[in-house]
Amino acid sequence: MEMNFCNRCASKLELRVPEGDNRLRHVCASCGAVHYENPVVIVGTIPIWQDQVLLCKRAIEPRRGFWTLPAGFQEIGEPIDEGALRETQEEAHAHAEIERLFAVLSVPEIGQVHLMFLAHLIKPEFSPGAESLQVRLFREQEIPWGHIAFRTISRTLRCYFFDRNRGEFGLHVSTLQRSPDG
Amino acid sequence: MEMNFCNRCASKLELRVPEGDNRLRHVCASCGAVHYENPVVIVGTIPIWQDQVLLCKRAIEPRRGFWTLPAGFQEIGEPIDEGALRETQEEAHAHAEIERLFAVLSVPEIGQVHLMFLAHLIKPEFSPGAESLQVRLFREQEIPWGHIAFRTISRTLRCYFFDRNRGEFGLHVSTLQRSPDG
Repeated sequence: MEMNFCNRCASKLELRVPEGDNRLRHVCASCGAVHYENPVVIVGTIPIWQDQVLLCKRAIEPRRGFWTLPAGFQEIGEPIDEGALRETQEEAHAHAEIERLFAVLSVPEIGQVHLMFLAHLIKPEFSPGAESLQVRLFREQEIPWGHIAFRTISRTLRCYFFDRNRGEFGLHVSTLQRSPDG
Repeated sequence: MEMNFCNRCASKLELRVPEGDNRLRHVCASCGAVHYENPVVIVGTIPIWQDQVLLCKRAIEPRRGFWTLPAGFQEIGEPIDEGALRETQEEAHAHAEIERLFAVLSVPEIGQVHLMFLAHLIKPEFSPGAESLQVRLFREQEIPWGHIAFRTISRTLRCYFFDRNRGEFGLHVSTLQRSPDG
């Protein structure tokens, strides 16, 4: 979003360091309101059925046609785990139960924090939501590693299979660089 | 922030459900820009020195005069752990090292996700930053439980002492209601 005008009074915004602050912010030249820009929280699941993981093929940009785990922006008013299950329902029409928080990945350059939960499908029933072209279960050896939409998703999947193969699930906290592809 | 006018073009915003969405959003009546409001990420530390925890007495509202752990809004461009250490430096002039992510607390009603890291002071040197009246180390039996600023902070401290007393530190993921006091 271009930051040109004040949400409160419609006057011009200027870029300056407010008193008592140490960073450039968009400040209203008229009413003085400071317009902070904050990182966003993305919540999602790793939906498991037996030895398979549910992935969604994206129907929207960025990365249309590439595979992803169900995930999206957390809404105000919803707990993080409920947001992750809502995204799973919206993107894959799948009902799942949360097992645990599995990965906390920050992508500072684009101001994102991803919270990915390990979850189990209640039934092997799913279908593409509005933002998906296709939804299907993959065994480890079937994962389309060359066609994963985002670096956060491939990192989460690699950590999942690593932990599954060693027989112990941990919490994975990492900082990632932005993918060259978004 | 009151949402009256468009950041991009200064026209009036209206509250409606955008096409393909299922929630009320502030949408520009003129240019069509959707102004999402997202939860914010708060990063902080539990700074430990020997058997003591560093707390800051707040110099600012809300909850001026009450005790808190160093924490604040994550900035765009910074990893979550670096943000937590920055807040520790700003509020307590203390240098610490992160041990692990310890608590992930969401407060959905006010759109906040708190990421609290267990950290160790490098030296027992600290002093109040601009947002603190006083900074000091507390042993468990000295914690001013009746004068802790926020529910997220008392929850984090209780989990810390619980884990320390049982001899094993876990990850604490919870959803909290907003405190009656903020």
